[in-house]
Amino acid sequence: MENKKYGEFDLKHKLLKGHNPLLSHSGVNAERLASRFHELAQIGLTNEKGSRRIGFSFQEFEAKELVKKWMIEAGLVVQVDGAGNVFGKLVGKDLTLPSILSGSHVDSVPNGGHFDGPLGVLAALEVVEAWKETSFQPRKSFEVVIFSDEEGSRFDNGLLGSQAMSGELNMTALKKVRDFNGEQFESVLIEAGLTLEGFTSARRDYSSIEAYIEVHIEQGKQLEKEDLPVGIVSGIAGPCWLQVTFTGESNHAGNTPMVGRQDALVAASKFIERVSELPKTVSDTAVATVGKLQVFPNGSNVIPGKVILTVDIRDIDLNSRDTLVEKIVAVGNQVENENAATFEYEELLRIAPVLVDESLKKKAEKACIDTDIRPFYLPSGAAHDAMVLGKHIPMSMLFVRSLDGISHNPREFSSLDDCVYSVHVLKKMIEQLNK
Amino acid sequence: MENKKYGEFDLKHKLLKGHNPLLSHSGVNAERLASRFHELAQIGLTNEKGSRRIGFSFQEFEAKELVKKWMIEAGLVVQVDGAGNVFGKLVGKDLTLPSILSGSHVDSVPNGGHFDGPLGVLAALEVVEAWKETSFQPRKSFEVVIFSDEEGSRFDNGLLGSQAMSGELNMTALKKVRDFNGEQFESVLIEAGLTLEGFTSARRDYSSIEAYIEVHIEQGKQLEKEDLPVGIVSGIAGPCWLQVTFTGESNHAGNTPMVGRQDALVAASKFIERVSELPKTVSDTAVATVGKLQVFPNGSNVIPGKVILTVDIRDIDLNSRDTLVEKIVAVGNQVENENAATFEYEELLRIAPVLVDESLKKKAEKACIDTDIRPFYLPSGAAHDAMVLGKHIPMSMLFVRSLDGISHNPREFSSLDDCVYSVHVLKKMIEQLNK
Repeated sequence: MENKKYGEFDLKHKLLKGHNPLLSHSGVNAERLASRFHELAQIGLTNEKGSRRIGFSFQEFEAKELVKKWMIEAGLVVQVDGAGNVFGKLVGKDLTLPSILSGSHVDSVPNGGHFDGPLGVLAALEVVEAWKETSFQPRKSFEVVIFSDEEGSRFDNGLLGSQAMSGELNMTALKKVRDFNGEQFESVLIEAGLTLEGFTSARRDYSSIEAYIEVHIEQGKQLEKEDLPVGIVSGIAGPCWLQVTFTGESNHAGNTPMVGRQDALVAASKFIERVSELPKTVSDTAVATVGKLQVFPNGSNVIPGKVILTVDIRDIDLNSRDTLVEKIVAVGNQVENENAATFEYEELLRIAPVLVDESLKKKAEKACIDTDIRPFYLPSGAAHDAMVLGKHIPMSMLFVRSLDGISHNPREFSSLDDCVYSVHVLKKMIEQLNK
Repeated sequence: MENKKYGEFDLKHKLLKGHNPLLSHSGVNAERLASRFHELAQIGLTNEKGSRRIGFSFQEFEAKELVKKWMIEAGLVVQVDGAGNVFGKLVGKDLTLPSILSGSHVDSVPNGGHFDGPLGVLAALEVVEAWKETSFQPRKSFEVVIFSDEEGSRFDNGLLGSQAMSGELNMTALKKVRDFNGEQFESVLIEAGLTLEGFTSARRDYSSIEAYIEVHIEQGKQLEKEDLPVGIVSGIAGPCWLQVTFTGESNHAGNTPMVGRQDALVAASKFIERVSELPKTVSDTAVATVGKLQVFPNGSNVIPGKVILTVDIRDIDLNSRDTLVEKIVAVGNQVENENAATFEYEELLRIAPVLVDESLKKKAEKACIDTDIRPFYLPSGAAHDAMVLGKHIPMSMLFVRSLDGISHNPREFSSLDDCVYSVHVLKKMIEQLNK
């Protein structure tokens, strides 16, 4: 095993240190959960104690194998579809009813953390363990799921497993993509023991599923700020990316008077400042960010002739997100009229936000209250497998507090207590669905 | 000769096309001037019909040799100092009086134009030719000067010839510099037929010079806007460069609400917008430009954690320039207080502006009026050899209209009529100095 060369990383000890043992009740076992985080973390452990389990790599495969072993030990019926998605099914009392699904992924970004993905899989599995310990059999079947390649680090194209399950992939386009080594999609699949045909056949009939609930780390700081272990996701924001170009005229910074300048960066600056004030005019959850900006020719003594920037615009509500996009374009035109620089834009991406099922939200609220957690709603700015499933079946997500909001980084961390809280909330939600 | 491979570039024909022959009077000959621009342009002609006569190159040497030949033909006494500066002296009637100097340079940037430099040298030489044709001998000696390496394309360090003449060079530091080929200053000098000792000995006693007047293309658009062939330089702006860093906090653009963000680019944008409004509060000639800007990490979906930018601040008046620098720093601190991003700055450069002699300005004004040109003052934002000499003796500059303000580019162009106008103004100025 590759990870051995880095020596053992004692995540279990780190998690158990100072945790509250009183949270281990109703069959939920914090120490078991900590051990499993620890064992998974050894697979693909990086020099910086981060995780490297790229989609379709041997490390992702190995991590799935480890979870499959635990599933089987817990009495689940394990099935792997053609996309490598793993389903561990606890058969319910009434076989005529569709299943409830919960899970996440075990792949990671190249030097990521140990919670983004694993938490959702291990939390769902811990619900099964808790039921087993308390001799509870749900009325409806419950499936613990591991989706393949959520992060998309291999082909710059995530959510592949959940999309394959939803029959949403453009296989013709996928056949053409190459990974960072220049390897084609098909040959990567073959190395991972999969096939293109299998990938296509992974499509599942959604009538066999009643709902999907995913536990995930927040990857933000809102829960930390609210001092809450768990929050209820209000919706998954759909991003719209605009590439904006301001074109002025490049001239010598010394020989061109201020009056009559066509400075593309001054125009872009006015735009950026005004864009930062717009999200609050449409909703509390809307965000707009200029993250990337390039100046041309970018010389200290040259007036910028051109600025290219991207605006990332998100909200969980489609109407307010689209209103925000319109307002941003209007501000661009306004700046063009006020300045001697032209405004042009191109839409790079526009994905619709995905709603969280209202009835599941209520169940999550009740489950939080029953766990002594103040119900708190927050949007998910990032995409998750739940976003893909949410288009087909009722979906819900629970977020777990992230230390300093850090994610996709070896320093990513959520306390064991917070993880255990999420297991209790998840378990109570599923039990409500079984009533 | 290297240039032959590109075939002949017919600058003479381009210059003469549509010019006004009536401007050739009082001994000034537009056709001679056009021929000389043309002949100089053949030396170091680039593929794009630009000029490549890097300081201390064979092309710069060859251009100087050509002008020396014309100087000798015009009856000038030619002397070359240890820095390669060429002085062609027309001996005046009164040998006890100091000389009046006029000229510029014949080196260029790697793919520059045919007017930046040559115009000043050829205009001064044309004054001599005109006097010769009209059998005029000035009371004071008149020297046509060609300064070495004005552009500084070889060592990123211009004005070397005029600085050597002024004894202002740090020879210890120069001994360490290397050109783009890694060649040391001394070996470059030796290849150009010069020596380090000669360079040091180039220092001239300024008591032998009464004044320096330089004709140069504007490299801006003010004269074009004013529809004037020639303008009077009001002063040479001294640049101050600040490197500014705004530091905020980098976070996920989707998972971080607008409230509480520490977006370094939003802070930088407020700064840039306000900086653009400041120059007019100190003077009409002050300018401030943010030309270079970098965003970190510069990802579409990441809130910028850091922005580094440079501000180029210039004015011809030291006080107003320095007041502007202070106001810009104050705006940086103001933005820091308003935003959750810190402001830091470092001064990269601070050069004092150089004043133009008031009595020479009056003479230039009279010369313009006598040439039927409305006197118009404009600052020089760029540095010139006149800046170096102006610290020691009365200095004046005349700017000639530049087509579209383009310079340091093969498309650099000034019409023959505008060049001839500048010869008349220069000639009248020097004649006033001889009264």
